[in-house]
Amino acid sequence: MGGDAGPGMVVAALARSVLRHPAAKFLLHGDEAVLQPLFAKRAKLLERIQLRHSPDQVRMEDKPSLSLRRGRNTSMWRAIEAVKNKEAEVAISAGNTGALMAMSMFQLGVLQGISRPAIAALWPTRRGQSVVLDVGANVTSDAEQLVDFAVMGEAFARAILGLDRPSIGLLNVGSEDVKGHEAVRAAAQILRNTSLPIEFRGFVEGDDIAEGTDDVVVTDGFTGNIALKTAEGTAKLVVGFLRAAMTRSLLGRIGGLFATGALKALRRKLDPRASNGGIFLGLNGIVVKSHGGTDEMGFASALDMAIDMADSGVMTRIIADRAHVEDTVPEAAAS
Amino acid sequence: MGGDAGPGMVVAALARSVLRHPAAKFLLHGDEAVLQPLFAKRAKLLERIQLRHSPDQVRMEDKPSLSLRRGRNTSMWRAIEAVKNKEAEVAISAGNTGALMAMSMFQLGVLQGISRPAIAALWPTRRGQSVVLDVGANVTSDAEQLVDFAVMGEAFARAILGLDRPSIGLLNVGSEDVKGHEAVRAAAQILRNTSLPIEFRGFVEGDDIAEGTDDVVVTDGFTGNIALKTAEGTAKLVVGFLRAAMTRSLLGRIGGLFATGALKALRRKLDPRASNGGIFLGLNGIVVKSHGGTDEMGFASALDMAIDMADSGVMTRIIADRAHVEDTVPEAAAS
Repeated sequence: MGGDAGPGMVVAALARSVLRHPAAKFLLHGDEAVLQPLFAKRAKLLERIQLRHSPDQVRMEDKPSLSLRRGRNTSMWRAIEAVKNKEAEVAISAGNTGALMAMSMFQLGVLQGISRPAIAALWPTRRGQSVVLDVGANVTSDAEQLVDFAVMGEAFARAILGLDRPSIGLLNVGSEDVKGHEAVRAAAQILRNTSLPIEFRGFVEGDDIAEGTDDVVVTDGFTGNIALKTAEGTAKLVVGFLRAAMTRSLLGRIGGLFATGALKALRRKLDPRASNGGIFLGLNGIVVKSHGGTDEMGFASALDMAIDMADSGVMTRIIADRAHVEDTVPEAAAS
Repeated sequence: MGGDAGPGMVVAALARSVLRHPAAKFLLHGDEAVLQPLFAKRAKLLERIQLRHSPDQVRMEDKPSLSLRRGRNTSMWRAIEAVKNKEAEVAISAGNTGALMAMSMFQLGVLQGISRPAIAALWPTRRGQSVVLDVGANVTSDAEQLVDFAVMGEAFARAILGLDRPSIGLLNVGSEDVKGHEAVRAAAQILRNTSLPIEFRGFVEGDDIAEGTDDVVVTDGFTGNIALKTAEGTAKLVVGFLRAAMTRSLLGRIGGLFATGALKALRRKLDPRASNGGIFLGLNGIVVKSHGGTDEMGFASALDMAIDMADSGVMTRIIADRAHVEDTVPEAAAS
């Protein structure tokens, strides 16, 4: 029921997803009176989908605390509940991020050995894609939490990007050991000293993200959220400047006509729908948040990722890895 | 003596600057044996410049603490000393940022009423330019320091962007009052309650910077530094994607030829040389840091800004404004 485009968009995305994932099954939670008519011309789609009626819905402006107290009859609550009850392996929503995180933490609980969950994002880079986390689950993070994020991001990169040994960088204001505040320096020390065979490469700077210097970039949720939105704003600004430059003169306009295909390729490359969604890591269950402003193509790609996650066993790996790093913390602190 | 391109670049920039600023006088600090030959074909330029010999120089890899202890004979130290001795109104360097800040704080001291200096950057936006600070002087900032930055950024925007009443936004992970950590929320409360006639508009998000939502964007030095470098990296990435898209196909290449002028205009718009340099605010004197990787055009534009700053009386304004906000803090805390 969430997202700017509403349930019609979700149903259209499901129609794509059932074709791509013939083995997947879907539970669709929402107001039956709204959902049923959307299947009027898609009777066959209903063979793959179970409709689950829920009378209420979380609105975009609802506070997380309110949604926890009064949200038990919402489609969002029910979708997460299905993961809790092992009826579903993953929950996905285009709704209110804060409410989705609060309900997920409340119902699913935090993964053993992890202190706080994080939201991971796939970030387009010069070399492909990197995983950046946390992009907004937390507003402050201590060293232990940054280490959690490193372990979770590494397991996620192996599962979703298919990398054997993803490299990890810790976002900082400089690459030297002395740079940054207490939390990043202490986290770096723990990661440097762990015996877990992870590829920790030390500090990276803001411009290293787009460069693709490392496969996993770890930061606190405040900095990560602002970096993500700053990058989105900058990409939009540059494309806007380009459009203005190419319509200002006759030659620019002619050039733009010839280059139409090239410019379309650029737009595809920067299309947020292709790397749509934030992944909630660190919970006893998988929850994926699609962009609120996405369309059926974007939601379908968030569904792809959710299904890949369910198939990957990433959660088991996170628990095992985090327990291993935990063992090495006293060592690191003593050194 | 600093910067990647060395003193030849600085002298070439000075040659441009003397023409633009007929009333300005320049002291050039450095190794005379290196500097003198650079004026072999510029004898006339020497009429406007005083050479000051200094035997040593700060290297890019020197630690700030070391440069403080052993740097008294460096060109950087002497340039700041000239400001301290009122021989110069502003010091400018393309050298080591950390050393420049440490020496500036040590020699000039922090402005009355300000707890920590900040580095401000001019940021290209859809509407023109905004001032963003702190972009790297500090790694953590409490509420009082964020208020300092707001007051300094506002005075700077009036002086350098020529705005009568610049608007101020506080960078956060959401625009609602409840968002963010303790420090940003407390700073917002102080700024909302001050009787100083400043245009504080509350929280802004990362994408608001490029949008130009507010003239001054305030954040801690950790987040600001990472946001700045993330934006630089993203702009480079998008331009790289564009270049690749326009060379991949024949039509793309033809389009690129026609659009050469348009693409050049885009490059000019994104050229970091046009908004080159970080401004150290909050010291008893003006210090400007030019990008280390700049060229004569970029250094000349940093000189323009330095001279504008010296002419503007921005320091006096900061002291007066900060004292005024200080008065209203108890009120804010009580409310």
